[in-house]
Amino acid sequence: FKHDAFIDQAPPNPAYARRARELCDQTGALLIVDDVRAGLRMARDCSWSLLGIEPDLSTWGKCIANGHPISALLGAEKARSAAASIYVTGSFWYQAAPMAAALETLRLVRDTDYLERIEALGDRLATGLVERAAAAGFGLRCSGPTQMPLYLFDDDPDLRKGFCWVSQMLARGVYMHPWHNMFICAAMTDADIDQALDAADGAFAALKQQAPGLAPVEKLAFLSAGQR
Amino acid sequence: FKHDAFIDQAPPNPAYARRARELCDQTGALLIVDDVRAGLRMARDCSWSLLGIEPDLSTWGKCIANGHPISALLGAEKARSAAASIYVTGSFWYQAAPMAAALETLRLVRDTDYLERIEALGDRLATGLVERAAAAGFGLRCSGPTQMPLYLFDDDPDLRKGFCWVSQMLARGVYMHPWHNMFICAAMTDADIDQALDAADGAFAALKQQAPGLAPVEKLAFLSAGQR
Repeated sequence: FKHDAFIDQAPPNPAYARRARELCDQTGALLIVDDVRAGLRMARDCSWSLLGIEPDLSTWGKCIANGHPISALLGAEKARSAAASIYVTGSFWYQAAPMAAALETLRLVRDTDYLERIEALGDRLATGLVERAAAAGFGLRCSGPTQMPLYLFDDDPDLRKGFCWVSQMLARGVYMHPWHNMFICAAMTDADIDQALDAADGAFAALKQQAPGLAPVEKLAFLSAGQR
Repeated sequence: FKHDAFIDQAPPNPAYARRARELCDQTGALLIVDDVRAGLRMARDCSWSLLGIEPDLSTWGKCIANGHPISALLGAEKARSAAASIYVTGSFWYQAAPMAAALETLRLVRDTDYLERIEALGDRLATGLVERAAAAGFGLRCSGPTQMPLYLFDDDPDLRKGFCWVSQMLARGVYMHPWHNMFICAAMTDADIDQALDAADGAFAALKQQAPGLAPVEKLAFLSAGQR
């Protein structure tokens, strides 16, 4: 799905995905899905499996070894012989720890309810934050899947409200990001969400006080200049 | 220096290096040295420091963290502002272990005689192997710095002798490579070199027996077809 920084995330358009698959099949092109962020976080499979569309290649990293440095290119059978004909080499790919971490992560993906848990935690966080924002008079949008959320404020074109709010959250022990999507981790618990929501009460109150006098965030000046 | 696979390694030509520096200075281009393999193995600095030529950028990896997964781009002051204007991001670059390993490796580079030791070990291995090869009737060439050697046999265009010999070395507990350069490690000792030389006696004897009947190595057929 679309997860650019600075703007609302957007789910993939099913008609677009189907048409991409059709066009690839008609022309013999390979359909490639970048699942570096979304893989295993939307489904126990490729994120486009939710749309019923199977790519020919998909790219993986990050969570497949729970943060250990490893990445992978998965491919359909029809791409195998071409891939096998490409000579590649690397300095670090015999590292044992990332391989072991990936195997264990994939075991947990298969055997546990991690996905349902991060979805439930993400839903609680999103619902709670949006409610608290509204109670303080702010429109806060959660875009994207709640387990991989991006939070942006309404009427905040240069993100100065967002920056102020995450600073206030940080001062209360909760690290949020003002313009990048975030990731609910399967190691989190309801207590972590409670802590974030408690912090949010104070952070929204502080934002309400400071909002009228907020200056633009210098390093984000390009946003209001229209360079996205 | 030139360290392609399959062919003798070659030291950099000093005139070539000087002229490259001159041309870059005249045109304003950046001179870039790939030190992923040779860095810290030829000198305690960039490998071209032996030639007295300083690059503007140099690329590093592998040994800078003694095998932990980290790489670096080093640059001269004049490249700093341009580099700082490029937005880059990565999944794994906050990994603490490779950073700590790199710091400790660089400390050892500064404080120990690792370089003189790997040079001395490499010289002993090269001299001993070439002598033993000659005694068995083979011409064995060590090209490149002896701490980063490539061993190739004379009259062995498709490397079948090399493959046979490294297989015999492996059967005797010593893992050598038939067509890629290798790296003497600072953790090695004279006893490791002795073990390799002892194994080489038997391996050259076995090669002498088998050489007349050796078949081509199938996966290296492209070498005799002239595709290098």
